[in-house]
Parts: sequence; structure tokens; C-alpha cells
Amino acid sequence: MVKYETQLDSVFNALAHPARRAMLARLSRGDATVGELAAPLAISPPAVTKHLKVLENAGLISRGRNAQWRPCRLEAAPLRSASGWIEEQRKIWEARLDRLENYLQTMETGENGDGDTGGE
Amino acid sequence: MVKYETQLDSVFNALAHPARRAMLARLSRGDATVGELAAPLAISPPAVTKHLKVLENAGLISRGRNAQWRPCRLEAAPLRSASGWIEEQRKIWEARLDRLENYLQTMETGENGDGDTGGE
Repeated sequence: MVKYETQLDSVFNALAHPARRAMLARLSRGDATVGELAAPLAISPPAVTKHLKVLENAGLISRGRNAQWRPCRLEAAPLRSASGWIEEQRKIWEARLDRLENYLQTMETGENGDGDTGGE
Repeated sequence: MVKYETQLDSVFNALAHPARRAMLARLSRGDATVGELAAPLAISPPAVTKHLKVLENAGLISRGRNAQWRPCRLEAAPLRSASGWIEEQRKIWEARLDRLENYLQTMETGENGDGDTGGE
């Protein structure tokens, strides 16, 4: 549980920067070298290195073993955990809203139902 | 676009702490006072205030106008944006994996289909 919470902390933290999201969006399309990831971003090489480290520490990317290119690859599992957490909350609040809506409809039907229909 | 990116920054940053996720999870179940949100968390009142401020600034919660209780309420829209960003990436990488799988199947079928012809 603690491990799961720690993973969520580091994944959400990694997602909280536009440069890192841009890198992940690029990697969704396919593996890329550090140079390819940095090219569209107007940031310094040390900043690129720092952002890559945050993404690697969150388990969101892995680096190839090829010593020369070491292409970066998206690791989808941590993103699924993050998305899963939000979806879990969504299910809970939507169920609550559904219950509220049903309740309001029951109230409304109850009020209108006093007329001549009286049916369900 | 900048506004969308800024919103994602602050929402993902807000989600990157277990106490704030616990508060949001509680609010998914229904509105709650600050006291109710703080009760299950082993953190100081100033820390509670700080986390609430982060959640409010990210637009994830709103506070009731009732001066005495000011219950907190979950605001779902920013969470949907965050989840939407991840889902967008997922669609892209899953489409890429599907194409790869199709390609590998074509290769495999091609190889089996060649039988003893000895094609490449």
C-alpha cells in the first residue's frame, strides 16, 4: 500500500510539468533518443537531463542498453496506476450523483404522480 | 493551450501527495467539513490548511458559503482533464502497439504461408 502510494506520488509529480508531459507524449508515438526528445523543447541540456531523471525515477520511462543511442521508451504501467486512481474516484462520485439524481426523480415523480396517472 | 497546461500542472501536482489524494477520495463520497477531512489523517492543522489550499488552487475543491461549516466539495472537471490527458496518450500508444502486433502477425503468417519455398 505504501509502495503504491509512493508510486502515485512520483508519477503524479512527474506529470506535473509541461516538458515532461511533452516527452511522454512523444514517447507514446515511439521510442526516441534524448536528442529527439529535447529537440522540440526550448530548454537547456541540463534541464532535459533533470526531467528525464524524474521520469525514470517514476518508472515512466526506461533507457535502452545500446551504449551509443540509449533510446528512451515509455513504460505504461505507472501511467495506468495513475489513471486507475482517478477512475476509481470517478466511479465513486458518479455513483453518488446517480443516487442523488434518482432520489430527485423519485421526489419529482412523487409530486407529479399525484395527478391522474398515478402509475410507476 | 497555456491555460490547459497550467491547469494540468497544478492538478497533477495536487494529486502528488497521499494526504491530498485521501482528501479527494473522501470528497468523492460526499461533501465534508475540514474537520471531517482532517480526522483520519495524522497531520497537523497547519498541514491540513496547506493541503486544502493546494487543492483549492488546482480547482479540485470548492468551499461552501455557509460561514459556520464551509463544507468542501469535489470539483470533478479538473480531474477529468488530468485523466483525459493520460487516456489520450494511452490511445496513441495502444494504437502503436496494435500496429506492431498486426505487423508481427503478418510476418508470421507470411513465414508460415511460405511453407517450404524458403523465402526471406
